[in-house]
Amino acid sequence: MRIAIGIDLGGTELRAAAIDETAQVLRHARLPTAAEAGPIAIVEQIARLVDNVSSGLDPTGIGIGSPGPLDAATGTVIHAPMLHGWRDVPLVQLVTDRTGLPTFLENDANAAALAEWRFGAAQGLRHMVYVTVSTGIGGGIVIDGRLLHGHRSLAGEIGHMTVTENPIPCACGGFGCWESLASGSALGRRAREAGLQADGPMTARVVAERAAAGDETARRLMAEEARYLGIGFANLLHLYAPEMIVVGGGVSAALPQMAEEIARTVSVRAMPAYADVPIRAAGLGTQAGVIGAALLALPG
Amino acid sequence: MRIAIGIDLGGTELRAAAIDETAQVLRHARLPTAAEAGPIAIVEQIARLVDNVSSGLDPTGIGIGSPGPLDAATGTVIHAPMLHGWRDVPLVQLVTDRTGLPTFLENDANAAALAEWRFGAAQGLRHMVYVTVSTGIGGGIVIDGRLLHGHRSLAGEIGHMTVTENPIPCACGGFGCWESLASGSALGRRAREAGLQADGPMTARVVAERAAAGDETARRLMAEEARYLGIGFANLLHLYAPEMIVVGGGVSAALPQMAEEIARTVSVRAMPAYADVPIRAAGLGTQAGVIGAALLALPG
Repeated sequence: MRIAIGIDLGGTELRAAAIDETAQVLRHARLPTAAEAGPIAIVEQIARLVDNVSSGLDPTGIGIGSPGPLDAATGTVIHAPMLHGWRDVPLVQLVTDRTGLPTFLENDANAAALAEWRFGAAQGLRHMVYVTVSTGIGGGIVIDGRLLHGHRSLAGEIGHMTVTENPIPCACGGFGCWESLASGSALGRRAREAGLQADGPMTARVVAERAAAGDETARRLMAEEARYLGIGFANLLHLYAPEMIVVGGGVSAALPQMAEEIARTVSVRAMPAYADVPIRAAGLGTQAGVIGAALLALPG
Repeated sequence: MRIAIGIDLGGTELRAAAIDETAQVLRHARLPTAAEAGPIAIVEQIARLVDNVSSGLDPTGIGIGSPGPLDAATGTVIHAPMLHGWRDVPLVQLVTDRTGLPTFLENDANAAALAEWRFGAAQGLRHMVYVTVSTGIGGGIVIDGRLLHGHRSLAGEIGHMTVTENPIPCACGGFGCWESLASGSALGRRAREAGLQADGPMTARVVAERAAAGDETARRLMAEEARYLGIGFANLLHLYAPEMIVVGGGVSAALPQMAEEIARTVSVRAMPAYADVPIRAAGLGTQAGVIGAALLALPG
């Protein structure tokens, strides 16, 4: 059975795993990303992780899921704002030169979408949208059994559709983007503004826990978060007509708490023809990114 | 050279044309749509128009562009709100039975997109988005040289993405949709609210003419319209990553007047990677719909 190495290049953590063709994780390893040290240092980290997880195995290649924008066709990361000095980095070339293995590159949300579509919640469907809701909001779209890339792989930046005229500044430089309204960071910001207190940083998880424990302010914040998510989900239904929306990322842990309010929002805003499309939590959890990355090197 | 008949089924007008493989219109005809008379009466109108435009020619088939939602694969119009009694109409079967010609069905905006992509403004591109702005807002998306359909052909309902939390009611039953903000009808409504007077109905064309003549209120209304269009265009760039946005429909006649404000809005809201994507008026004008419909029966 073929084996490939998946690399999930995050702003804080670099994960690697050896995966077989049935998406079983045979071995895995992780390092804190050397985000400040520039591309070459990270290529060294990747090579070390590849050595680590492939010893005794014979991997056919490496797939890398990276934050974007990036050009999957040329293997270049155009810009990764969370990684210092990452502009037009020929990552595929650098990793191939260093490891001798064929290497493939994909947007991290696209990689996770691929994993969820081939082995996770959306297995067997022709059309699906994967949404990751954490610090930001990203997306990966499968239409007719293929990842939607668009011109220069720039399609599916679903976090940056404007959903409100309220000029909330977004990390992208725009205003009123879905991400600025519905990401985990946005929820944390609203929780601080509402006076909610936390021992450590105010995260979506803290708000969700407080809400589950009955705190009224936290419950109101979670209902608002659910409504904002629902607005975006309704948009995705009209735009891509998936058979399922799969939700991953940290905030998806609170999906059961939010399900009712999300469903209510979608039913008001989506036309009846879309009403029966399920919205499900990712089936592969936090592993979706690294599994999907490996699948890039294991075409099905 | 092969010839096909295109039918553009509109709420007020039914158009037909005989088209050759180079998209030349050989003959055309039109009738006021019998919108109140039910599907069978309209099938009779279609058959009459087909006879009319095909005499002396030998068409290989018929393509119909219809308002949706519809299922292109089964040839069924699911619901056409502007046509009385149109629910689950097996239009392809009805027209084939009546005319004896192979018949194809497509969403009207998709048909126009196909025409603009194969013979109009977006000729030769791999990825394009066609937007029609008139009474409502519709879209047709070409990705990797293929129309984007999604599940049950329901993708590309771009008029119904929420772009504002301002709860403006939309014809779809939702609130704050792009169509409710930026369609010709929305512009006409704002013009009436602003006290602009017209001899006949207050249309987008009237507002555009007044603005061109220097009326300050009309100019402000057109700038606002341009901003609303720009917000939606920026969304489409992030969502589909086209190489070009092509704009058709009545309101597109005012595109030159609005170009500067549209460009300003897009440059503020779209990430730099999308900045150079042109936004162009449709090359085939009001013929795009009927040409695209005929092309359904002339696969390239």
